Amino acid sequence: MSFEKLAELIEKKNNPTVMGLDPKLDYVPVFIREGKTVGDALFEFNKGLIDCVSDIIPAVKPQSAFYEMYGIEGLKALDRTISYAKEAGLYVITDVKRGDIGSTAEAYAEAFFGPASAGTDCVTVNPYLGSDGVMPFVLAAEKYDKAIFVLVKTSNPSSAELQDIDCGGVPLYIKTAELVKKWGECESGKKRVGAVVGATHPRQLKELREALPDVFFLVPGYGAQGGTAEDVRFAFCPDGNGAVVNSSRGLMCAYKKQSDDANYQKYTRQAALEMRDALNSVRK
Amino acid sequence: MSFEKLAELIEKKNNPTVMGLDPKLDYVPVFIREGKTVGDALFEFNKGLIDCVSDIIPAVKPQSAFYEMYGIEGLKALDRTISYAKEAGLYVITDVKRGDIGSTAEAYAEAFFGPASAGTDCVTVNPYLGSDGVMPFVLAAEKYDKAIFVLVKTSNPSSAELQDIDCGGVPLYIKTAELVKKWGECESGKKRVGAVVGATHPRQLKELREALPDVFFLVPGYGAQGGTAEDVRFAFCPDGNGAVVNSSRGLMCAYKKQSDDANYQKYTRQAALEMRDALNSVRK
Repeated sequence: MSFEKLAELIEKKNNPTVMGLDPKLDYVPVFIREGKTVGDALFEFNKGLIDCVSDIIPAVKPQSAFYEMYGIEGLKALDRTISYAKEAGLYVITDVKRGDIGSTAEAYAEAFFGPASAGTDCVTVNPYLGSDGVMPFVLAAEKYDKAIFVLVKTSNPSSAELQDIDCGGVPLYIKTAELVKKWGECESGKKRVGAVVGATHPRQLKELREALPDVFFLVPGYGAQGGTAEDVRFAFCPDGNGAVVNSSRGLMCAYKKQSDDANYQKYTRQAALEMRDALNSVRK
Repeated sequence: MSFEKLAELIEKKNNPTVMGLDPKLDYVPVFIREGKTVGDALFEFNKGLIDCVSDIIPAVKPQSAFYEMYGIEGLKALDRTISYAKEAGLYVITDVKRGDIGSTAEAYAEAFFGPASAGTDCVTVNPYLGSDGVMPFVLAAEKYDKAIFVLVKTSNPSSAELQDIDCGGVPLYIKTAELVKKWGECESGKKRVGAVVGATHPRQLKELREALPDVFFLVPGYGAQGGTAEDVRFAFCPDGNGAVVNSSRGLMCAYKKQSDDANYQKYTRQAALEMRDALNSVRK
């Protein structure tokens, strides 16, 4: 679905949080793992996480790698997770970071958005190949009522190696941002092309919000990766909208600090409420 | 396996060709499709293609997107294809172009190289996230005796939009090449970190071969995408080694020019022999 729908859900729940669903097996409480296949354990954990926050969180972001690493079984768990989250009324961003030449990008877009897919609302896309690697996703997004977030400035420590390279007075991520703007301004791209900008880069968040005033931001890196509510203040538009902030470990593994596996849902919900309040305190 | 093993296979078969296995369903001859599930049809076609060239071609490159687009069934066909190609003695490069933050890159590296994988020798990796998106693949490559090709200058028309941006007198792809050199010079990366440079950019092939004299090149874009043997001349090292050139449609769909589905293997083999001779004429 377009970002208008995501914005409506954020408004309704008064919460710009997306919960990452990156289920490393050792994130899953032991009592859930016991007696189950890996795929069933991942899905059961995700289901429990969704159940305990779906009334207060608007979106989830499964990271494809953590399912792909368990092969076919993992991918089935991913599809079930996407379906379950959709049934729970959540916006689903599947983090796949694909990027390839035109005909191949078309195949990926069909894989994630087409009628045989599990029904994700949105995927992440890598910009390194330029327009003909991205536009097939934009066209498919319009066709199937979906959206994409394009990597601009990622949250990881070495993102600077290429993304911050000086390109005639501006860093590369600004050049990428200019492409994102162009893709989002084409007829198919309106309200469907967003940008990924890491919570770990507050200065760049501010700079990119100014460069892309009308573009929806997905902001990873909050919590375990080091980003704080203060750091993401400038991800939001002046009206407090236009961004979702992701936390994965901070929500999924909240129970670990308490050594109380059985009540993991209680701690995830508590962490989600704290994150909501922290984000609302800086965006309004 | 490291690129030394790939080089041995190229030497033995006197052929630097890699056959792309990108089985769009309409590439598959109708008589193979009839009465089969999509997954079985894709695998049967791949098997037929491998059978008719495995004595003259050293490597194959399945493009993951064309399997992922058929969901679980497609992924099973990909795994079967990788296993079959390995049994046939071929070097397998799975074209996945993944790239993500550290912990996620680790999960992908485990997915493709780990004990539960189908056993590919090599994958393609996107450099946009920098070292901590790539090094987990390099470390896993050493651990499991695998290799990676990092995208440097891709074959598609819009590759220039980011990759050719001027970065203080040199284009971005040269900055990427410097990173590839660094990754390949670390202890784990020796003979395991190659570069993707498109056949459609002969000038850049020459420039990058000079910048990366010891790096193995994967050169896509030959044939249907427009690259010729003359265009890829400078991909090779002065001794005629150090590169593999990919053709997908040119080999897989050779039968289409003849409208002779039943004998598709004959035409694929003929096209492969022509490609081998054309490449050998420029590299020696």
